Amino acid sequence: MRSTMQDQPLSLSRLLRYATTVHARSTVTTWTGETTRTRTYGELGARAAQVAHALTRLGVHRSDRVATFMWNNGEHLEVYAAVPAMGAVLHALNIRLFPEQLVYIANHAEDRVVFVDGSLLDTFTPLLPQLATVRHVIVVNGDAGALEAPAHVTVHAYEQLLAQEPATYDFPVVDEDAAATMCYTSGTTGDPKGVVYSHRSLYLHAMHLTTPGAMGLSPRERCLAIVPMFHVNAWSLPFAALMSGASLLMPDQHLQPEPLLALMAAGRPTRAAAVPTIWSGILARLASHPQDISHLSEAFVGGSAVPPALMQAFEERHGVRIVHAWGMTETSAVSTVAHPPADRPDDEAWQYRLTQGQFPALVEHRIVDDEGAVVPHDGSSLGELQVRGPWVTGAYYAPSPTADAGDHFDDGWLRTGDIGRITPDGYLTLVDRAKDVIKSGGEWISSVEMENDVMAHPAVAEAAVFGVPDDRWDERPCVAVALADGADADVITLRAHLADSWARWQLPERWAFVDAVPKTSVGKFDKKTLRRLYAAGELAITYAP
Amino acid sequence: MRSTMQDQPLSLSRLLRYATTVHARSTVTTWTGETTRTRTYGELGARAAQVAHALTRLGVHRSDRVATFMWNNGEHLEVYAAVPAMGAVLHALNIRLFPEQLVYIANHAEDRVVFVDGSLLDTFTPLLPQLATVRHVIVVNGDAGALEAPAHVTVHAYEQLLAQEPATYDFPVVDEDAAATMCYTSGTTGDPKGVVYSHRSLYLHAMHLTTPGAMGLSPRERCLAIVPMFHVNAWSLPFAALMSGASLLMPDQHLQPEPLLALMAAGRPTRAAAVPTIWSGILARLASHPQDISHLSEAFVGGSAVPPALMQAFEERHGVRIVHAWGMTETSAVSTVAHPPADRPDDEAWQYRLTQGQFPALVEHRIVDDEGAVVPHDGSSLGELQVRGPWVTGAYYAPSPTADAGDHFDDGWLRTGDIGRITPDGYLTLVDRAKDVIKSGGEWISSVEMENDVMAHPAVAEAAVFGVPDDRWDERPCVAVALADGADADVITLRAHLADSWARWQLPERWAFVDAVPKTSVGKFDKKTLRRLYAAGELAITYAP
Repeated sequence: MRSTMQDQPLSLSRLLRYATTVHARSTVTTWTGETTRTRTYGELGARAAQVAHALTRLGVHRSDRVATFMWNNGEHLEVYAAVPAMGAVLHALNIRLFPEQLVYIANHAEDRVVFVDGSLLDTFTPLLPQLATVRHVIVVNGDAGALEAPAHVTVHAYEQLLAQEPATYDFPVVDEDAAATMCYTSGTTGDPKGVVYSHRSLYLHAMHLTTPGAMGLSPRERCLAIVPMFHVNAWSLPFAALMSGASLLMPDQHLQPEPLLALMAAGRPTRAAAVPTIWSGILARLASHPQDISHLSEAFVGGSAVPPALMQAFEERHGVRIVHAWGMTETSAVSTVAHPPADRPDDEAWQYRLTQGQFPALVEHRIVDDEGAVVPHDGSSLGELQVRGPWVTGAYYAPSPTADAGDHFDDGWLRTGDIGRITPDGYLTLVDRAKDVIKSGGEWISSVEMENDVMAHPAVAEAAVFGVPDDRWDERPCVAVALADGADADVITLRAHLADSWARWQLPERWAFVDAVPKTSVGKFDKKTLRRLYAAGELAITYAP
Repeated sequence: MRSTMQDQPLSLSRLLRYATTVHARSTVTTWTGETTRTRTYGELGARAAQVAHALTRLGVHRSDRVATFMWNNGEHLEVYAAVPAMGAVLHALNIRLFPEQLVYIANHAEDRVVFVDGSLLDTFTPLLPQLATVRHVIVVNGDAGALEAPAHVTVHAYEQLLAQEPATYDFPVVDEDAAATMCYTSGTTGDPKGVVYSHRSLYLHAMHLTTPGAMGLSPRERCLAIVPMFHVNAWSLPFAALMSGASLLMPDQHLQPEPLLALMAAGRPTRAAAVPTIWSGILARLASHPQDISHLSEAFVGGSAVPPALMQAFEERHGVRIVHAWGMTETSAVSTVAHPPADRPDDEAWQYRLTQGQFPALVEHRIVDDEGAVVPHDGSSLGELQVRGPWVTGAYYAPSPTADAGDHFDDGWLRTGDIGRITPDGYLTLVDRAKDVIKSGGEWISSVEMENDVMAHPAVAEAAVFGVPDDRWDERPCVAVALADGADADVITLRAHLADSWARWQLPERWAFVDAVPKTSVGKFDKKTLRRLYAAGELAITYAP
């Protein structure tokens, strides 16, 4: 039996029309370095229409990829709004990637047009000759004349381009499963892999973001979007703000604590979203430059785990609640949010707040052990996290033969590559990457938890735990330790320290004292190199007595 | 270009599994008349599984209609959860309809099973022999043995039926466009018309309900659902509560102010939903029986317009904010919610709160005038409200030849039959039913606004305004007035009173002084009868001098 309901799509073009009329008075405010520049969503509607006309005139058709190479600012939001609404595909390039990765990604996506911030021309210009499919570059807030472009590329100035276009555009209704935006993951192995979001997935994810279980957005809220718009659609915040009528504050290139706090003083945000290091910097700045930021009732943090001390400091000193969230490019950013249960005492609630967060209704989740068996959500059984749902990717875009050929999907579920556990009430704790977890005698040891515990010893500067082959137990943990300057500690001391929180069988036998732990290009412990050095006998191992 | 997102449906079966695990500690509490009976959503999961097993054993297949004849209680929620999740179609019968309407509706929907509250057996039993397709009746909280049933109907006791079934059920994944629930509108003309909601429409509508732009639901909230579960799925509250983890409070048959306040004292709801008369009764009771109900931060009101005095009294005396909402069976209940804009002063905000409310992103809306032209959203242009969206119906279920053959759809939009205006920021004000609005010399006069103004005169007990034919102006307003006991007022006085707020050309010439205004079976002014009496010359008309 079919329903009698209308067959109407979840459409970003209709969302744009809605937001720019019903919420026409809501605003997007950009920090210029000295002051703010504000436009209403009503003005955004007119300018998005001009962007769509301009792109149409430049020959952009449905499904064509339109890239941005921009900071978070009001103009970026205009492009964000216009491109999916006209049926084209927005591709926000991560300006922080290595040049060769950027070139690979833009060519793989076949980007035809790139919008570039004037402040990023120095970074962008050397790439341009290698971007094989780009035909138009549009310079935003900068000197278009200064850009030297190859013959097959036409350079435009954003404001001049818009000025000649009408302020209304008949945005089409696009199929909800059609591509709307795309983003690449920069994995540590192989070429970056593309994820293509649909109108449906972005709509549902943005709608979820507006609920109290996530960020709780309405026209009453002003949201500081520090998380870059080139990181998984800025966690869908642009679309969630348009949907709910929440106003947006954008820092542009000014991501240091001082200008961020100046923008906060000017715009008094009630919500914000950023990675932990941003919050650490703001906290440090506030210690020497006091400022009332209690207007910020909830600050969302994702990208990596938040130190509990940071959460406590913001809450006690500044009346700001830090809320932990977790997601990945493949899951449209925000998948779990660590609002604690309503019915638990404070100390227990605190433990919940340190998890990666609670799953929402639209992200199905399971933990799968080494043998492929689904284990219970009992808060202790470990395994790989797998997720499923309408805003989770089911494939990568046009995988290249040289791309990481790993097995990313399991019977329709996304394999996250993360090892974790889930409580009966749906809170996720991630303990390790699957490739780093140590499988010893059929039991799993989290390398991350163990190295955090080693690093908690005052004599230790840094420590990495990695798995090495073992005849009897298949695999055992090995610890690479760099001692703090002038400190001293031996294996007996460090093992005794670990014995406070680890079972006897888990304690590592192999220890390597090093000057520094080797790191990857993005600053993470390079366990692949550690395993290679160990296998080659190039690490001096001290065995526990 | 297709997205890489997973093709995963919006499914009430997955919602049930989610709610009964992740939100297993949330509760549904039913008032028994003296105390409360509480079950957790975890227990709900087990009992919904038992309901599904029992129905399967009774031969219920996908798409079969399963009816309820029940008050709002925890057992009704179990049936609500189980039936759509197993792929069958829940049909909550409106226990307040006339017997002949109930029989028509149950036969038209081809209901196979009916769940009946024991307290409703006296009403239900006389209907049963006429329900042609019903094969099983399941008596909830009552004496199944007391029900005399025809030979082709088997009677079961709910708890006994459940007791023999397993507490887990492998709910299927149902196509999101498949039927999930249905509801009939009881129009004043013709047979009732059925609307069939899909998993998709209910999911999206419930998700909207959880946002701050609507009810703002999370595990922190306790929601008193007074609006009957047989009225448009109780505005989707059951599904929204399951999705968000909000707890539910259910009054069962105890809808008088005294037990409702007793339930509120026991359950301390933070949200509630009911029609205005319920709130009037509670307000009156509180005047003589003081009780702190300030835990109730937002009380949602729909079904008919709320008197401003009622809103003020709740806010000033009890710290409870009454929030006006509007919708209809055809629009899945809640379509607009009157949260005022964040950026307006108090007196202006108050005017916004008296509207029907602001449209959300997923309900497209337009006002169409008498000639079929779309008029601007300028806050003054009147016309018929038309809406479109994924939770708006696009048809009626299997329309019968004798059903009202009106033209309900216009190029894919639902014609609501309501006359109204929309502000630039998307707030709706309804002024009349389309069939009652008076079209005089090309201008429209709201019969409802005019009769409200007549009734504001202290000498008037009640007044109905209706259109009558006029040679010069096509149509003119005629007023039927019943004066208050012992009061006196003539046409000159009443016209002078109206002249304070109406233009000279709008003032009615024709006045009929009556003992009482004729009413329909549901207590509304019967303008059809008034027009007939006028045409037959059976109303004594006084003409204004």
